[in-house]
Amino acid sequence: VAILGPGLIGGSLALALRATDPSLPLRLWGRNPDTLNKATKTVGGDVMGFSSPEETAQGAATIVLCTPMECMENLARKFLPALSSGTLVTDVGSVKAPVVASLEKVLGSSYVGSHPMAGSEQSGWNSASAQLFENSVCFLTPTPHTPKPAVKHFAAFWRSVGCSIQITDPKQHDQAVARISHLPHLTAAALVLAAGGQTQSLAGPGYRDSTRVAMGSPDMWSGIIQHNREAILSSLDLFEQKLGLFRRAVTEEKTEDLQELLAGAAKIRRSLPRKS
Amino acid sequence: VAILGPGLIGGSLALALRATDPSLPLRLWGRNPDTLNKATKTVGGDVMGFSSPEETAQGAATIVLCTPMECMENLARKFLPALSSGTLVTDVGSVKAPVVASLEKVLGSSYVGSHPMAGSEQSGWNSASAQLFENSVCFLTPTPHTPKPAVKHFAAFWRSVGCSIQITDPKQHDQAVARISHLPHLTAAALVLAAGGQTQSLAGPGYRDSTRVAMGSPDMWSGIIQHNREAILSSLDLFEQKLGLFRRAVTEEKTEDLQELLAGAAKIRRSLPRKS
Repeated sequence: VAILGPGLIGGSLALALRATDPSLPLRLWGRNPDTLNKATKTVGGDVMGFSSPEETAQGAATIVLCTPMECMENLARKFLPALSSGTLVTDVGSVKAPVVASLEKVLGSSYVGSHPMAGSEQSGWNSASAQLFENSVCFLTPTPHTPKPAVKHFAAFWRSVGCSIQITDPKQHDQAVARISHLPHLTAAALVLAAGGQTQSLAGPGYRDSTRVAMGSPDMWSGIIQHNREAILSSLDLFEQKLGLFRRAVTEEKTEDLQELLAGAAKIRRSLPRKS
Repeated sequence: VAILGPGLIGGSLALALRATDPSLPLRLWGRNPDTLNKATKTVGGDVMGFSSPEETAQGAATIVLCTPMECMENLARKFLPALSSGTLVTDVGSVKAPVVASLEKVLGSSYVGSHPMAGSEQSGWNSASAQLFENSVCFLTPTPHTPKPAVKHFAAFWRSVGCSIQITDPKQHDQAVARISHLPHLTAAALVLAAGGQTQSLAGPGYRDSTRVAMGSPDMWSGIIQHNREAILSSLDLFEQKLGLFRRAVTEEKTEDLQELLAGAAKIRRSLPRKS
């Protein structure tokens, strides 16, 4: 397995694969030689670090792109000549329609998009953990051109590190994550700006949890948000419509409406099983 | 110490006081005899349960009202004739201006408002814990009529169970909690309604944390929100203004603006010390 980009996701993937198979050959590529060094040392076993994407890909049966989305197409072009026949490639980008379009163009039927919904407000190799993917959902986003065996291959791959699999098309994926990930990021950031530092210092556990994601990397998140612009703008519309219902119930002192809205939200939220 | 209402807050207070002093005499009042029974058994030591507020207050040096805010004035009127001279009374209501006004009218200089910012999406005696108040902020909200020794008394009281103290006037308190507690509750509920049950089932840890508070009791929260209507409506205005900045940056594809907004929020949120 070759992993390009040993950050939070790529590093955790290397650690998780190593935990499931002590003898699995791993090939890591990273821009920063220090990080690459640390990562190969910590992962241990049959692992090699490379500074060239082409060398990294040589002989790998599975390649996983874990870099920022902006770099993926370029890297794919670089390692394309080194792909063995039968090598399968995926990426872990948080937005799928644009990434799938550009990588499928380069890699053709060797490629399927993935998006493991794992991670935290942290980023980088130092936050990587072999347990990151346990009990998380991994999306696979095939297109009409994707061969079924490629989907099967990556379903088994992500299951081996603890994910459950959701197969969906790239656009539907992007609409779903706009609502469950990108929109909550924007509302958390807006809550923090509305509170301000001084008021925030008085906050309790509710505020802490509600705004935790706002600590995420601004660079990474502005990239994600721009890649999923359309779906995010329509999620914002939907959110503001729902918030408007609460505002009206409060403004007009409609107690029953307010209770009903809160009860509806509580019921949906309580239906989400606690993580085991 | 007499505690009226052995729910999440009142029950936790009884357990926390018992943990700090095994021989402290405690007097509990609750509407539900079964809960009252369970609570007195679990708290143990010198503890008595009462069904009359008047009896509960007899001989108590400190009285803490931990019921829903709607019931507090009525209870205070009932136990008023039984107050010893020097007895001090507080309440734990989440909104202070209306509660302080009504209780000060009944109890005069025996009363100071409190609001320990502890709790969770759970409620009731079964969720009570002796550690609930550790590392949390407790507001005290004196008015120009409140005697200083009463403030000092309750500052020491809440510190003894692990709180740090913030003294502020009732209106300022209500504006602050609108922003750090009531507004995040409404946005969490609106996020859940915008996601819907099916999309939500795909969610990761970010969504879980961002929306946890939406599981809170709809009855309790509609009470809180109505009591703090004005401050909440102005927090909503402020929030929507901040969210509008994000929307504009996304709509107009202004990458730098978006990064700056996200970085500003991340910086403020990261300045909040992790709970020790």
